[in-house]
Amino acid sequence: MTAFASVFKQARPGVAIIGAGAVGRVLALRLADCGYPILGVISRTRSHAEALAQSVGAPVASDDLGALPAAAQLVLICVPDDAVTDIAERLTGVRHPWRETVVAHTSGALPSSALGALAGEGADTLSFHPLQALTERSGPEALDGIYVGLEGGQRAVGAGIELAVGLGLRYLVLSAEARARYHVAAVVASNFLVTLVAMVQEILNSIDVPRDDAFALVEPLLRGTLDNLARSTPEEALTGPVVRGDLETLRRHGLALRQHLPQLVPSYAALTVEAVRVAVRSGRLDPRRAEEVLALAQRLVTTPLPPRGRPDRQEPVARPSGVT
Amino acid sequence: MTAFASVFKQARPGVAIIGAGAVGRVLALRLADCGYPILGVISRTRSHAEALAQSVGAPVASDDLGALPAAAQLVLICVPDDAVTDIAERLTGVRHPWRETVVAHTSGALPSSALGALAGEGADTLSFHPLQALTERSGPEALDGIYVGLEGGQRAVGAGIELAVGLGLRYLVLSAEARARYHVAAVVASNFLVTLVAMVQEILNSIDVPRDDAFALVEPLLRGTLDNLARSTPEEALTGPVVRGDLETLRRHGLALRQHLPQLVPSYAALTVEAVRVAVRSGRLDPRRAEEVLALAQRLVTTPLPPRGRPDRQEPVARPSGVT
Repeated sequence: MTAFASVFKQARPGVAIIGAGAVGRVLALRLADCGYPILGVISRTRSHAEALAQSVGAPVASDDLGALPAAAQLVLICVPDDAVTDIAERLTGVRHPWRETVVAHTSGALPSSALGALAGEGADTLSFHPLQALTERSGPEALDGIYVGLEGGQRAVGAGIELAVGLGLRYLVLSAEARARYHVAAVVASNFLVTLVAMVQEILNSIDVPRDDAFALVEPLLRGTLDNLARSTPEEALTGPVVRGDLETLRRHGLALRQHLPQLVPSYAALTVEAVRVAVRSGRLDPRRAEEVLALAQRLVTTPLPPRGRPDRQEPVARPSGVT
Repeated sequence: MTAFASVFKQARPGVAIIGAGAVGRVLALRLADCGYPILGVISRTRSHAEALAQSVGAPVASDDLGALPAAAQLVLICVPDDAVTDIAERLTGVRHPWRETVVAHTSGALPSSALGALAGEGADTLSFHPLQALTERSGPEALDGIYVGLEGGQRAVGAGIELAVGLGLRYLVLSAEARARYHVAAVVASNFLVTLVAMVQEILNSIDVPRDDAFALVEPLLRGTLDNLARSTPEEALTGPVVRGDLETLRRHGLALRQHLPQLVPSYAALTVEAVRVAVRSGRLDPRRAEEVLALAQRLVTTPLPPRGRPDRQEPVARPSGVT
C-alpha cells in the first residue's frame, strides 16, 4: 500500500457489537451517545443481546453470528480472551463484505493477529483496548479521559484512531512487540493496586478494623496520593519512612509484620526494595543509608520467624557491620 | 481517674501550632476555617511562621518556643519525626499551664509516648495523625473525608475526638500495640502506590512512552480501579490474567519483563503471588490453577536470565510436571 484515505466511508460508520458483557455494553453505550448507529448486538446469551440492543436502539439482536448486519463497517468483538480466536474463525463462515470491514477485538492480552482468520478474508484487523477496569457496574462515563491501546496494520490503526477520536478518547499506538509490556503496565497499575488494597485490609483487619471501614479509612489517602502523582513525579511524590531513611520506623514495621502478619513479609520486603530504588533516584535517600534499608528488608525475609504467639525478639535490624 | 468531662473548656479552644511545613499549614488552615482561634505559630524558620500566622490570623509568630501563648489549650507539634522528642523536651523549659493543656504530635510513626517529657509535666499527650499524604502543594480540602489516627491516654484520646469532630474529620482510636500496623497499612497504601506508579512508568518508558504521558495513560485506570474498590471487595474488584488463570498471557508478560526489564522481575513476581492469594479467596481461581501460576512466578525469579540483548528463549513456564 502506498496511500490510504479515511478508512470509514462515513464519519460515524455502522457498528456491530459481538459480546454484551461489561466492555461490550460500555462501548455500545458510548458509541450510541457519540452518534454511531449500532446495527446489531450478538451475544452467546440472547437475552443479553436483546437488552443491550434495546438500550442502544439496535435493530438486530441475536445469539447467532450469522445475523451480523451486512452494512456493519466496524465489527467490535468484546468477548472473553479465550473466545476471540474462535469467534474470528467462525465469522469467516459468515457472508460479509470483509474487505471493506474493520474488525477489532478489545482484549488487552491478545495481539491483533488473534483475528488472523478474518485478515485472511481481507478484513482490516485491530486490537482496540480501552485502558480501564470495566465491570458490570461501570457506566459509559468510565471511559472519560481514557486512552485506547491500538495495534494492527497501518490502515487498521488509522481506523482505530478515527474511532478513538469519534468517541472522545485518547489513544496509544503499539507495535506488536510493545504490547506485552503495555499490558504488563496495565496489570501493575490495576491488578496490583487491588492487591495492595487487599494487603491493607488484611493488615487493618488484624487490628480489628472491619473490612468495610478499612477501605473508607485509606480511600482518601489513596486518592490524595494519586492527586500528588498527577502534579509531580513518583520520585517527588514519595513520602514515608523509606525515603526518609527512617530505620527505626522500618524496624518497628518489620517486627509488627513478622509477629502478626508473616504471610505479608515477602511482598512487603519486595516493595520496600522497589521503593528504595525510587527513593535513591529522588536524590533524597543517600546510597549508604539505602544499603541499610535494603539490608533490613533482606533480614525480614531471611531471619527465621519467632514461634507463633511469641513476640519477635529476633533483631532483624542489627546495624550492618559490613557497611562503614 | 474515674470520670472526666469535655476536655477543652470551649468547643473551639485556642491552638498553638509548632511547625509550619505541609502538615502544620494544612491543619492550621483547616482549624481557622472551622473557627478555632490560632493563637500562635512557631517554626524554626521565622519567615515560615510569619507567613502561616498571617494567613490564619494568628497574633504570635516566632522561631522561639518561649513565645508559646499561655492561653493555648491545645499545642499541635507538626515537625519532622526526628525532631518531635527534642521539641517536647525543650517545651518542658517553657512556663505554661501544662496540666490544663493537650499536646499532640502529628507523626504516623511515633507513639504518643514520644511526648513523655510533657506528660511528666502533667500535659495530656496524644498522637493525632491525619491519614493523608500531605505535601507543600496540598490545600485544606485534602483533609475532606479523611480519618485521623488517635493514640494516647483516655483523656487525651477524648480531646483528639473533640478535635477530629470539630474539624469535620473521622477518627480511628489505636492502642499503642496497634499503631505500628496502622502505620504499615498507610505505608502500603500510599508509599507503595507511588512505587507501583514508578514501576508502571519504568515499563512504559521502555516502549518509548514519555514519563509525563505515562501517568496520564494510567491515571483513569487507577482512579477507575479505586471506584471499583469503593463499591466492592478487592476479591470482587480483581480483574486480569491472574484471577483468570491465564497462563499464556502471564508467560508472555514474564518473558517481556525478563528480556526488557529484568530489574522489575522480583517485585512483579512477589505481587503476582500476593494477587494469587486474593484470586483464590475470590473463589474464581481454583487452587490447582493457582499452583501453576505460583510455579510460573517462581520460575521467573529462579530461571537464569538470558544474555543481555538476546531474546529470552528460556521457557520459564514449561508445564509443571509435578502437578497432576
